[in-house]
Amino acid sequence: MQILYDRIRKDGIVRAGNVLKVDRFLNHQMDIHLFQEIGKEFKRRFEGEEINKILTIEASGIGIACIVAEYFDVPVVFAKKTKTKNIAGEVYTTKVESFTHGTVYDIIVSKEFLGKGDKVLSAEDHVLIIDDFLAKGKALDGLTTLIQDSGAELVGAGIVIEKGFQDGGKRIRDKGIRVESLAIVDSMNAETGEIVFRNEDK
Amino acid sequence: MQILYDRIRKDGIVRAGNVLKVDRFLNHQMDIHLFQEIGKEFKRRFEGEEINKILTIEASGIGIACIVAEYFDVPVVFAKKTKTKNIAGEVYTTKVESFTHGTVYDIIVSKEFLGKGDKVLSAEDHVLIIDDFLAKGKALDGLTTLIQDSGAELVGAGIVIEKGFQDGGKRIRDKGIRVESLAIVDSMNAETGEIVFRNEDK
Repeated sequence: MQILYDRIRKDGIVRAGNVLKVDRFLNHQMDIHLFQEIGKEFKRRFEGEEINKILTIEASGIGIACIVAEYFDVPVVFAKKTKTKNIAGEVYTTKVESFTHGTVYDIIVSKEFLGKGDKVLSAEDHVLIIDDFLAKGKALDGLTTLIQDSGAELVGAGIVIEKGFQDGGKRIRDKGIRVESLAIVDSMNAETGEIVFRNEDK
Repeated sequence: MQILYDRIRKDGIVRAGNVLKVDRFLNHQMDIHLFQEIGKEFKRRFEGEEINKILTIEASGIGIACIVAEYFDVPVVFAKKTKTKNIAGEVYTTKVESFTHGTVYDIIVSKEFLGKGDKVLSAEDHVLIIDDFLAKGKALDGLTTLIQDSGAELVGAGIVIEKGFQDGGKRIRDKGIRVESLAIVDSMNAETGEIVFRNEDK
């Protein structure tokens, strides 16, 4: 997605340790116009698929997922990172390891909102996962586990930026899960700021 | 906002201790159609105001803020609840007390995205705060502090549900801050499920 490549080059910051900061437009400040283009592109890529729910994870996936959801005309559910007092009753839960933060956390989704038969907003859940980043793929593993545990159908995952030099994308595609990433970074150079995207037309 | 009153009565759950669970449509599962109606209503209420940025706080404010932002055609910034490795450099920060979780946490916004002159997406920040709930008002106090510290102009706050029987709304309005709440709950009854909204046409 060329406008995303251009935007990452313009406003992204490459830091040592393969860190790509995109908080000017994606995950701290959020450019809603760009999110709309992202929504259109995911809609194009998943055209013809039956999708009636989007699942994401707090916090930085939520904004993208909500704008994307307008193009699919479906509700969004976000997995929460810790159990709060406001969620009573039964939940699907699994553990996710965060390499960015060096921690392991629980993610949960209320059983009411994911499964073979959601009683509130949809009949049978055909779920598209949306998230901002895919690197080692641990968050995506966690969301996939929640969907499988619930009995819902996983249609695929739409990712804004994939770090193609880490193993998450390949590992998850090798399981037969469809992953569509709008920008796959094959390499970046913290000295020069250069970023190489997979399959970019020159 | 009658459709919001109706939705809260239909899908909200009143629990003992003045807890109102709205996670079927607002802050766990998110009804994007409802969010669009919320966006239109905030746009109507703040018509004529110069607003070029929306500020919210993770996690449950983000989805609403992004959809609302489409009606104002502005970017969104969300305050983060803890300092992560991915935010380097200087931030505005303040402490917020959570009564729901019984904790005190830091909220931060990068100085790059809030202030008299944001260099990335807008010239001078005129900020509308958007959040899902207002009760004691501690999160809103925190966001207000960040805006004041940054030198940006606070236009007002748009809240989806205000607990009118708690003191946050009155206290903050008494400071001269414009607060527009789409549903103000004056009382609720956990036994009967009855909810009384302020100024509802009968």
